[in-house]
Amino acid sequence: MTGKLYLVGVGPGDRDLLTLKAVRVLSEADCIAFPQKPGQGSMALEIAGAHVPDDKRLLPIAIPMELDRAPAQMAYDQGAAHIAALTDQGLSVAYLCEGDPLFYGSAMFLIERLATRTEIIIVPGITSLTAAAAVASRPLAARNDRLKVLPAPLDTETLRHELQHTESVAIIKVGRHFHRIRNLLRETGHEKALVIEHAMGTKQKISPLDAFADEERPYFSIILSYRGEEDWAR
Amino acid sequence: MTGKLYLVGVGPGDRDLLTLKAVRVLSEADCIAFPQKPGQGSMALEIAGAHVPDDKRLLPIAIPMELDRAPAQMAYDQGAAHIAALTDQGLSVAYLCEGDPLFYGSAMFLIERLATRTEIIIVPGITSLTAAAAVASRPLAARNDRLKVLPAPLDTETLRHELQHTESVAIIKVGRHFHRIRNLLRETGHEKALVIEHAMGTKQKISPLDAFADEERPYFSIILSYRGEEDWAR
Repeated sequence: MTGKLYLVGVGPGDRDLLTLKAVRVLSEADCIAFPQKPGQGSMALEIAGAHVPDDKRLLPIAIPMELDRAPAQMAYDQGAAHIAALTDQGLSVAYLCEGDPLFYGSAMFLIERLATRTEIIIVPGITSLTAAAAVASRPLAARNDRLKVLPAPLDTETLRHELQHTESVAIIKVGRHFHRIRNLLRETGHEKALVIEHAMGTKQKISPLDAFADEERPYFSIILSYRGEEDWAR
Repeated sequence: MTGKLYLVGVGPGDRDLLTLKAVRVLSEADCIAFPQKPGQGSMALEIAGAHVPDDKRLLPIAIPMELDRAPAQMAYDQGAAHIAALTDQGLSVAYLCEGDPLFYGSAMFLIERLATRTEIIIVPGITSLTAAAAVASRPLAARNDRLKVLPAPLDTETLRHELQHTESVAIIKVGRHFHRIRNLLRETGHEKALVIEHAMGTKQKISPLDAFADEERPYFSIILSYRGEEDWAR
């Protein structure tokens, strides 16, 4: 593992959903790096903590959560420099990623900065997408179904068109867009969608679209809808 | 676990990419069921075999591979009846699924048949999608990128339109559709797509679109393309 950076998917929130490979990398790496919101804990470290030996060297990377991208970019610059200083010395670093490193994750900011300097190895993880489907016991897609992953901040016209033309959809980053998304789903035949909060985490909750009052917003949620031809529960 | 059916994702092909939860379920279940092509081995059992104790009761479900759906449907009817006979006796059954059970898998055929009769628990697995991205070291999507999973047998007009309007795409079930798909990708600005065969398996191979002669077809492959705004390797 000498001098390598491992981007390790730690899955959606259940410590038993780490892979054997992820657990082995965490036990063997010289240093464990992870993103952290300033003044808060690290969700990735909370998920994987049970598998990080007590005496392991830790490298928290504090990422400011602001609309302006510059402070976060600077934090990744510094974090990447710290990691590279370690790998240049021949040490191995495991960077913890919630879910999967390459599925809407922050790992890409390290790939952008370090790909030409450090050998990077990706350890895939369970995504929030399959975790949400699992807790809902609802297949995502089959046969020739299209499956679209759509971030909620996309503009309304784009979302409407994509929703009209798909069998299966997962809407991520819902947050403050919930009311607009709910209206769009109802308008495009996806009114049976499910809202899944904290899939596989301790605060897990599964609700129909209608379960929320107008002023209420589901938190850390993903919305799944299927309207293809398969009859999942005949 | 009494009387329950576990649909267990065993990941894309590396025995170390099973989750801790999957390994525990395989060790504790009374019976291990798996799909098998007649006259051939079972890919799911090959992947997970190292984690199945030697004395475990096995239930292979032979699935005929024919264009006509009726024989396969009958095989799932029989397999589901076998499983239900076991769970009705209070035994637990783990059914092995390549990749993730709910991502274009055969597990849905058991869900359709058993959801109203048996308690079903899904153990998510690493998908071919994130495995392919991992071996290519290429992020799937970030920020407000759309990510579309498109089965290659879809009609040309649908595929062209979906490819024109996305930042990221994964094309699955490529097989005999390779030449048509390659032409469509070139036409829609996805000419830098990568063809990933047997991701994380022993026969893993990563190639640019151009690497194949006209008469050649990549096998067990997924095609990934990204043409969004992120600069992955600056």
